Amino acid sequence: MRKRSDKESAYQEQVAALNGTLGQMCELAGNAMDRATQALLQANLPVAEEVITDHDQMIELSAKAEKRAFALLAQQAPMPADLRATVTGFQIVANVDRMGALALHVAKVARRRHPNKALPEEVDGYFAEMGRLAVKLAHAAREVLESQDPQHALQLEEDDDAMDDLHRHLFSVLMDREWKHGVAAAVDVTLLGRYYERFADHAVLIGRRVVFQTTGMTPQQLIDTT
Amino acid sequence: MRKRSDKESAYQEQVAALNGTLGQMCELAGNAMDRATQALLQANLPVAEEVITDHDQMIELSAKAEKRAFALLAQQAPMPADLRATVTGFQIVANVDRMGALALHVAKVARRRHPNKALPEEVDGYFAEMGRLAVKLAHAAREVLESQDPQHALQLEEDDDAMDDLHRHLFSVLMDREWKHGVAAAVDVTLLGRYYERFADHAVLIGRRVVFQTTGMTPQQLIDTT
Repeated sequence: MRKRSDKESAYQEQVAALNGTLGQMCELAGNAMDRATQALLQANLPVAEEVITDHDQMIELSAKAEKRAFALLAQQAPMPADLRATVTGFQIVANVDRMGALALHVAKVARRRHPNKALPEEVDGYFAEMGRLAVKLAHAAREVLESQDPQHALQLEEDDDAMDDLHRHLFSVLMDREWKHGVAAAVDVTLLGRYYERFADHAVLIGRRVVFQTTGMTPQQLIDTT
Repeated sequence: MRKRSDKESAYQEQVAALNGTLGQMCELAGNAMDRATQALLQANLPVAEEVITDHDQMIELSAKAEKRAFALLAQQAPMPADLRATVTGFQIVANVDRMGALALHVAKVARRRHPNKALPEEVDGYFAEMGRLAVKLAHAAREVLESQDPQHALQLEEDDDAMDDLHRHLFSVLMDREWKHGVAAAVDVTLLGRYYERFADHAVLIGRRVVFQTTGMTPQQLIDTT
């Protein structure tokens, strides 16, 4: 492989800076989901409010990331991998934005139901565990963005499988004739479950995009060739 | 403004072709949601199956659109507006993909509940109207992609407001103590309502992306300056 020119190295540094910003966004989203889950489980209004207020930081970082990506594009990238990195950057911004929005939704449900708890105690364990997985996935997405390791990216899928299992079980609890908490709680639990599940999906998508960014392959192609 | 070179015109033609493919995708998504709504309202299994099978067309078109967008990127666009068009193209692919996936979700609920109807008759009217709005929004997104008219793009927001109103009313029906259809139906209605609402959100995002693509402004900036 030929040696990279100075211009190419400078470009690489900017790509790394973009990925760094995207990683920070993942961390923010994970942190927001962590606190939103606490607010939900403990009917803690101040924590819910904090998550809602802090969402502005996410919006700021998101604008910063898009600006970085546009600056990269305007430089006319020298190699296909660099083009992929830039495009992937825009796509990842959209995924992390969504993760932040979903954490915000959870916090808003906690706020809306305060001083009551939105969740019947029966499903607390599900949400504690879905919250833990969501935070783990956001953290893993950050690590993958930093390491750019496609094998590591594939591992996100496993935690997502665990999330999907929990989500399915949660639905079987809801659909059970023994559900005694009424329709309003069922509606909250349904939407909340979906928020956690979608949060995990977006983290997995980030992993897939890093696979594509670094290898030019889809995750399935990567599995087939390794 | 200086005259565009032949190279620039060729680029413009390819941008138009990309937008054409994206428009086709919007039409497919709208069509899928139209049939999924029928399947849902009439507990029509063959129609639900058809929507599920036809989703492959969406996946194919999506791959085609991304390929076109990459081809454009690799050409190193001559002007900022062209860069915006390409990046926006990737973002819109993600939005329409999601619209298609949401129509698929609706069809799958109809299939899962067959031969029963997923919806209690009481909420049929809401879903008929949400279906109509979803199809209208998908169609409008296609038109905006073709016309590239930012003013037209802003109009999508109005239909989305109507969707949000319906969605809110639907929840008040669910939360009403008079709801007699049990928790399982409430869970279905909750998720289905969310699918239509998110479908509309993605159509609106397409409109916003066209505003940015053609003017370099956010929709709010456009409103402020016109």
